[in-house]
Formats: sequence, C-alpha cells, structure tokens
Amino acid sequence: MKAKIIVTPKKAVVDPQGKTVQTALEQMGHRGIKAVHVGKYLEIELDGDKESARKSLDEACHKFLSNPVIEDYKLEIE
Amino acid sequence: MKAKIIVTPKKAVVDPQGKTVQTALEQMGHRGIKAVHVGKYLEIELDGDKESARKSLDEACHKFLSNPVIEDYKLEIE
Repeated sequence: MKAKIIVTPKKAVVDPQGKTVQTALEQMGHRGIKAVHVGKYLEIELDGDKESARKSLDEACHKFLSNPVIEDYKLEIE
Repeated sequence: MKAKIIVTPKKAVVDPQGKTVQTALEQMGHRGIKAVHVGKYLEIELDGDKESARKSLDEACHKFLSNPVIEDYKLEIE
C-alpha cells in the first residue's frame, strides 16, 4: 500500500520559495505565470489495513509532518 | 489552468530526509512502514494554451526545477 501526502503552505501565508520560483521562471522567459506554490511531497510505503493506516497517518500529518498553523495537507492512500 | 509538478529522488539515490521521516514515524509508534520518500511539490497557476504550457514547463522541469541526474519529475496539467 502506498500513501501520498502533499503539504502546501496555506493560501494566506507568504510563500517566499514559490515567489522565487515564479520570478526565476519569468526571467527564463516563461510567460503567463500567475502564481507558484511550493510544498512538500511524501510517499510512504506501508503494510496493514487501509483504514487504520489512514487514521494513523492522518494523526502523523497533523502532529509532525505538517505545521497546521501555516500548512494544509492532503493525504491519499492507494 | 493549473500545473502540478512532483519532484522525487530517483529510487537508486540515497534519500536521507525520507529515512529520517521513517525513523521518526517508527519512534512515534507507527508500525508497518517500509519506506518513505520525500520530494518537492510545485503548483503553478498559469494562462495560455495547454500544449504550449506543457512544453514550456517540461523544459523548465528539466532545466531547473529538478536535477535530472538524481531526481525524477512528474508533470500534470489540469
């Protein structure tokens, strides 16, 4: 089983890394870029049943894989 | 239009960040974790037509958003 977690800064939070990538893309001649957000991607391979894995990882995301004050996360299990 | 880019270390490359997250999850009592890979996630909002955006971003991914020697990337446009 594979879990995919995407952690992104909340929309209201300043994202200097995203801003830097946006500027760099513009300087390299890419046109029409309105916004860039940079986040983290985690891929976790694990055993066990799907529901308990989801519960356990959801708790891990909330507790230490993301900072819920400034970040959102999306957890997918497949 | 929104482009989503996921950059992950190649399987053959040592991923110390993933290893650290794996150890931390185990120490927090999460069982059955076989592997963790940590990568980057980029979300780009842009104008223009889909095909030229794909071409332009594919080039950007290859040139400077990822390091093709040690990283793979996946580009999705929706």
